[in-house]
Amino acid sequence: MLTHESVVSGKRISADLKELAEIGRSDDGGVYRMAFSEADMEGKDWLEAKMQEAGLETSRDGACNVIGRLRGREPDAPALLIGSHIDTVPCAGILDGTLGVLTGLECLRVLKQREQVPSCDIELIAFSDEEGRFGGMFGSQALAGQITPDTIHSATDPGGERLEDAMKALGLDPWEALQARRDPQSIGGYLELHIEQGPVLNKAEEQVGVVEAITGLFKWTITFSGEPNHAGTTPMPMRRDAFMGVADFAHEVPRILDENGSDRSRATIGRVELTPGSPNTVPGEATFTIDVRDTDETVMNELAGAIRKVLAAIARRRGLRFSYQVESWIKPVTCDARLVEQVDAAAAAGGFRYRRMESGAAHDAQIVASVAPVAMIFVPSVDGKSHSPAEWTAWDDIEAGAQVMLGAVERLAFDA
Amino acid sequence: MLTHESVVSGKRISADLKELAEIGRSDDGGVYRMAFSEADMEGKDWLEAKMQEAGLETSRDGACNVIGRLRGREPDAPALLIGSHIDTVPCAGILDGTLGVLTGLECLRVLKQREQVPSCDIELIAFSDEEGRFGGMFGSQALAGQITPDTIHSATDPGGERLEDAMKALGLDPWEALQARRDPQSIGGYLELHIEQGPVLNKAEEQVGVVEAITGLFKWTITFSGEPNHAGTTPMPMRRDAFMGVADFAHEVPRILDENGSDRSRATIGRVELTPGSPNTVPGEATFTIDVRDTDETVMNELAGAIRKVLAAIARRRGLRFSYQVESWIKPVTCDARLVEQVDAAAAAGGFRYRRMESGAAHDAQIVASVAPVAMIFVPSVDGKSHSPAEWTAWDDIEAGAQVMLGAVERLAFDA
Repeated sequence: MLTHESVVSGKRISADLKELAEIGRSDDGGVYRMAFSEADMEGKDWLEAKMQEAGLETSRDGACNVIGRLRGREPDAPALLIGSHIDTVPCAGILDGTLGVLTGLECLRVLKQREQVPSCDIELIAFSDEEGRFGGMFGSQALAGQITPDTIHSATDPGGERLEDAMKALGLDPWEALQARRDPQSIGGYLELHIEQGPVLNKAEEQVGVVEAITGLFKWTITFSGEPNHAGTTPMPMRRDAFMGVADFAHEVPRILDENGSDRSRATIGRVELTPGSPNTVPGEATFTIDVRDTDETVMNELAGAIRKVLAAIARRRGLRFSYQVESWIKPVTCDARLVEQVDAAAAAGGFRYRRMESGAAHDAQIVASVAPVAMIFVPSVDGKSHSPAEWTAWDDIEAGAQVMLGAVERLAFDA
Repeated sequence: MLTHESVVSGKRISADLKELAEIGRSDDGGVYRMAFSEADMEGKDWLEAKMQEAGLETSRDGACNVIGRLRGREPDAPALLIGSHIDTVPCAGILDGTLGVLTGLECLRVLKQREQVPSCDIELIAFSDEEGRFGGMFGSQALAGQITPDTIHSATDPGGERLEDAMKALGLDPWEALQARRDPQSIGGYLELHIEQGPVLNKAEEQVGVVEAITGLFKWTITFSGEPNHAGTTPMPMRRDAFMGVADFAHEVPRILDENGSDRSRATIGRVELTPGSPNTVPGEATFTIDVRDTDETVMNELAGAIRKVLAAIARRRGLRFSYQVESWIKPVTCDARLVEQVDAAAAAGGFRYRRMESGAAHDAQIVASVAPVAMIFVPSVDGKSHSPAEWTAWDDIEAGAQVMLGAVERLAFDA
């Protein structure tokens, strides 16, 4: 282990962020660097040049993940990967995954300058399409061997553009993505720094989050069916009002979480559609979504069971029918205890205000976890905002996060 | 008063209904006789010919209301009007207002055949556009003097067609509608038979409703504003979820009605729209409609006050803002006691199963009430259905309703 004298340069991180923010920037202040767009490729080119400038060996795999390698002493030892992604949602802020890649770049720059050789290769990786323009997390899924010819063939973006066509237009061969799979034995671990995208650290005035788990989630689309009736002529006791079923359900959500959930449980009704949707008609049908998350799959199962019971009880009580469609079931990920301890130790050693916490959002780390131990470092999101130009993190906190990443890498890839 | 030997002919009513049902009928089984369409005019022509066949003096006023007159003994005595409308919503059933016009036609046919002269003129009237294609109840509003040049100029249908253009295309001069106003002194009363459009009579297995009041209503569009947040990263206690405000409100509706309403009160949330409306985002904004009805304006005011209190309390509790837009406030109408008594007497004399009740829907009678005493007769709607091809009333009940109308007219327009 190095003697912890290495210090990241906030100035260099700031300069990098500023430069990359201009790639894909629009007049509305938002960044439009969507996966496999011209701007995305320009960003990748910029990043690769920066990696080379820092003395890293660069390459791109078949999924167009950009990799910068700091060679270690033992070429066959499993590599330590760090990184995130630089693609964005439309009208994004300038941080999100980009911050994880650029703080990672700064860490490797510092280590390179110290000229001490790590015990294993350290790779900085920027994954392709983390934001799911084409429906998944293409880059990390390719690395984890979760891509098939069918994935490549059938993936389209919300506008109907095919992944294949988008890649070909950029001179890429989409079938090469099948070659991007890495032997799990070749990866010793993966560390990802990301903005929290939630309000917890910001509210608590803490600088760093040491992520212990990434929540799983399930998403259902639920429909209550009753009878569409005239709002004036149908007495209240003669109604079978589908929306009142939804309201009853929403009212039960806090109880369902209290009784069956943990303090990490979340449940959100994000969309509601009433049919016929006319102000003077009792809704005959109500369709809504529920998004439920927890870091423990047992808890997720209990929540799902409790929800089914409540739906059935409401339907019985109100003379409604109900049906639900399972849109997704994503298992939670527990971060690797050894990696988490080293991140925690680095945060403690740096004297930062930090907490152990969970990630409520999905990240590349969740995918990589299927083939290697992972851990994550969060920095605060001002007002919990992300995916908008209002997304921000105080410079001090960015430096703190980068410093924790550097400390963790030093602890993991250098001999004591 | 006649000696109650007059009896309507269900056969003739049935034959008339069958003929008129073919005008505007579509392949989907629905009737499309929307106001000021070709089919509507064809229906009016058919009706006028039928009136003439029955020996009535026919005319059309400037709003294209079709009128058939049975002359009374005293030409200056205020006339008794009966009727309803024959225009339909798109894909309508064959009854609705048409039943009121055709049973009225049968009543005058019977009276004409008895060759006894009523004390005052009896007019059968079919009002134009009761269904509000052009945004109001054009025919009865014109008769009541509620139409202005601006109404005529600015009225459009949901597809953007202007009332002026629609009338001109049929060879009608829209400005003539301003001439359709009748001197209130010239109208002694208005009786309207209509299907109930609700489930009350049908459930109770009753044949006739003697309408005492027509409900008033108010319609608000209400918006709760909170904060759109990530469904995974935002802990439950840190949310300002606009939809949960709507759910809280819906949950309070029964209590609001119990505490501040009457057994005639109704409240309906018919439309809900969430922004951004994405399954994985806590709704930042929720807009919904509430339609509230009662036959007593004092009760309506109390309900409105209670709703405001609940909205304010929910907003405070959940850290939301709220605003509401009053879309309409329509005063309730109390039917004329003398007319109601005569209708009641006719129902009792006929030995029918009937009840006093309110109308939860709006009708031409509501408009006419601003210039003359009104009452209404309801017949049951099978399963409460209306405005669809499934709309139906048993023949026995149609005959019962027509017979009550005839009895009421005899009581009101013939000397004892």
